[in-house]
Amino acid sequence: MSKIVTVGREFGSGGRELGRRLAEELGIAYYDKEIITEIARRTELSEQYVQQIVEHKPVVLYPIHVGRSFYPALDAAAAQSSAVYHEQHEIIREMAEKSDCVIVGRCADYILRDKKPLRLFVYADEASKLARCRAKAPENERFTDRKLARLIRKIDAERAHYYYFYTGKKWGDPLNFDVCINTTNTQIKALAKAIARLCE
Amino acid sequence: MSKIVTVGREFGSGGRELGRRLAEELGIAYYDKEIITEIARRTELSEQYVQQIVEHKPVVLYPIHVGRSFYPALDAAAAQSSAVYHEQHEIIREMAEKSDCVIVGRCADYILRDKKPLRLFVYADEASKLARCRAKAPENERFTDRKLARLIRKIDAERAHYYYFYTGKKWGDPLNFDVCINTTNTQIKALAKAIARLCE
Repeated sequence: MSKIVTVGREFGSGGRELGRRLAEELGIAYYDKEIITEIARRTELSEQYVQQIVEHKPVVLYPIHVGRSFYPALDAAAAQSSAVYHEQHEIIREMAEKSDCVIVGRCADYILRDKKPLRLFVYADEASKLARCRAKAPENERFTDRKLARLIRKIDAERAHYYYFYTGKKWGDPLNFDVCINTTNTQIKALAKAIARLCE
Repeated sequence: MSKIVTVGREFGSGGRELGRRLAEELGIAYYDKEIITEIARRTELSEQYVQQIVEHKPVVLYPIHVGRSFYPALDAAAAQSSAVYHEQHEIIREMAEKSDCVIVGRCADYILRDKKPLRLFVYADEASKLARCRAKAPENERFTDRKLARLIRKIDAERAHYYYFYTGKKWGDPLNFDVCINTTNTQIKALAKAIARLCE
C-alpha cells in the first residue's frame, strides 16, 4: 500500500494525534504546522492570519471546483483566502513529492488523489469527543457540555463547508475514504500501532 | 485486540469473501452456512426455509428491541421468523463462547456486544459492487446495470430493515463499527492480509 497517508477527522476525535503517532510508527514525515509556516513565508502573511484562514470557511461565494471562465471580482479577504488555499495546495504536493508522509486535514486526500494515498477518516461519538476536548482544554476553561458540543458541531460544519468548497465532495462521506476509524473509548497510542500495521 | 470479529457489509462489497479470508489469515473459525444448518436442526425447519427467513425482512410489525410487556398475537410466519432469530442469537453466542471467530452479518456485532468484538463494516461504490456481482453471476443471468443496481439497493434496504428491527440501530452507521473498509477498486485477497494485521 501507498506510504502517503491522509487523515480526515472530526474535531475532538483524536485524528491529529493519530496522524502524528502513525507517522512515528511508520518512520515517515508528519506535516502539520510546517505547512502554515511555509504558506506564511510564501504569501507574506502572518502565520497567525494564515492559521485563521485555513481554520475558517473560505469567503468566496462560488465553489472553486466549479469550472468557470468568469469570476466576479473578489474582495481582498476572499483573494487572500484563495491565495492561501492555492499555496497550501502547492506545498502539500511538493511535500508528498519529497517523501512518504502523513498529512492531517487540509483536503490532502483530494489534493493528492492522483498519488492514490491511503485515505483515513477518524471519528468518534459525541461523549468521547467531549471527553477528549475536556482533557486538552486549559484549566480555566468553563464551557458547559452543551456549549462544548455546539462548538464541536460548529467546527465540523466549517470543515464540511471548506471541504465541499474546494473539492465538490461531501466531507466525511465514507466513499471518499479507504478506511474509517472509530476512536470512541480507545487509546490513540494503541490504535496508532494497529493502524500502522495496516499501512505497512 | 479481541479475536472475535464481526463483519457487516453492503451487498456486492465483497464483505463475505473478506470475512472468510480474514479468518484464514488469522487462523480462527469462520461461521457462515453452519449457522443456518444448526438453526434448521434446532427449529426442525428446512435449511432452505431458514435461509429465506434470515435473508428477508422479519414480518413482525413491532420492533423486537422495544421493551414491551404485551405483544399482539403473532401469525405463524412471524412466529417462525422470530424463532429463527432467537435460535440464531443463541447459536452465535455459543459459537463465540467456543472459540475466536469471524461472523459475517446476522446482527452479530449487536448480539456479541458484551464480548467487545472488533466490528468491521465493508462498503464500496455502486460501480464496484455492480462489477463484483457480475463477476459472480451465472453466465445466463441477463440483468441490465440499472436492474442490478436496483436489486442491490433492495437487498441492502432489507438488511437495514432487519438490523433496525432486531437492534434498534441504523444499519451501516459508522458509529456502530470500529473500522469501516472501502473495497472499491481493491483486491479482497490483498486487503484481507492488511486487515488481518489490524486484528492481530
